[in-house]
Amino acid sequence: MYQLPANLRKIALFLKRLPGIGEKTANRLAFFLLKIPDEDLQDFAQSISQLKRKTKMCQVCFNFTEDKICSICQDEKRDKGVIMVVETVVDLLSFEVGGIYQGVYHVLHGKIDPLNRIGPEDIKINDLLIRIKKSLAQKASIREIILATNPDMEGEATALFIKKKLEKLKQENGFFFKISRLAYGLPVGANLEYADYVTLKRAMDNRINY
Amino acid sequence: MYQLPANLRKIALFLKRLPGIGEKTANRLAFFLLKIPDEDLQDFAQSISQLKRKTKMCQVCFNFTEDKICSICQDEKRDKGVIMVVETVVDLLSFEVGGIYQGVYHVLHGKIDPLNRIGPEDIKINDLLIRIKKSLAQKASIREIILATNPDMEGEATALFIKKKLEKLKQENGFFFKISRLAYGLPVGANLEYADYVTLKRAMDNRINY
Repeated sequence: MYQLPANLRKIALFLKRLPGIGEKTANRLAFFLLKIPDEDLQDFAQSISQLKRKTKMCQVCFNFTEDKICSICQDEKRDKGVIMVVETVVDLLSFEVGGIYQGVYHVLHGKIDPLNRIGPEDIKINDLLIRIKKSLAQKASIREIILATNPDMEGEATALFIKKKLEKLKQENGFFFKISRLAYGLPVGANLEYADYVTLKRAMDNRINY
Repeated sequence: MYQLPANLRKIALFLKRLPGIGEKTANRLAFFLLKIPDEDLQDFAQSISQLKRKTKMCQVCFNFTEDKICSICQDEKRDKGVIMVVETVVDLLSFEVGGIYQGVYHVLHGKIDPLNRIGPEDIKINDLLIRIKKSLAQKASIREIILATNPDMEGEATALFIKKKLEKLKQENGFFFKISRLAYGLPVGANLEYADYVTLKRAMDNRINY
């Protein structure tokens, strides 16, 4: 069978490994790269080559950073008393793009997912507990932990697991902080007709005074 | 506003330039790259860096190749008497994956598209005419040109334009070869219910004895 020239084929094969990119898309992207100025390709190649060496995890919140501590944790304007627990850096970015949150984060880098053999010890849950303990031992005030895992089954299970761990931590150490979870309800701009009944039930149960 | 660390951001910005990849997907892909073994990233970076230098167009059919002539044109088993004219190398690959075609190709690298200011001189139409003339002058037999541009408006216009040029070439030089176009009709496995009426009309008009 006919195959693409070696270099182009290698690129297509690599791109095929990325999530959501099938064989045809990988080929199309590889061809598209041929239209990009060589200078930009060289820059891109260099970034790729340096990626792992340069990009580390923040020692406090496990966000990606090129320093020891990420720019959010370094930012003096951010409220260190509120920690939002998210599954991934993509989720963190969603809040940052909106600019709707002024606290800090804790990135779990995954969720508890027994079907894929990911247990609590495989994500940064223990690091969260250690972080809170350390902070409170240093008399830093932590007022609230917001559990912002996804509203799917694994995200729920992860939130519940962390909640229990946090409750225990509070009890055993006499700590006090609020534990909260993002609200469920109708997405803004959505149509009732297309909402699933679980969402509708949650929207009913959590209805607000108006 | 918070920004990704520089190296990661550069990669995401580059990926965003690729077709079909928006900002969120670009970020997600960049994060995914962090999970790939560094050895593979280095290989990929090298392929990207060498891409333009290594990959050229075949001097005969304009397929991508690392040699002067692509492996299809070099293949002695391929029937050089039949040339299929396609818009892109992606289209060529579609036929090759199926293994349903034993002739050779001519890649136009585009289609006539006045709205995007792409005229006949911007794609490899003239090269096709020169190629045919040269072949026939060297007493190589060309029996058929298959016009396999896409069945959309620009693809149709391109096929029609090339057809006229080929007719003229035949008349002026006393050449003889067949000019054909891919058949229109119902896609195999499709449901009549979802076929548009133009396709249905074509399927009616071109119905076959059964």
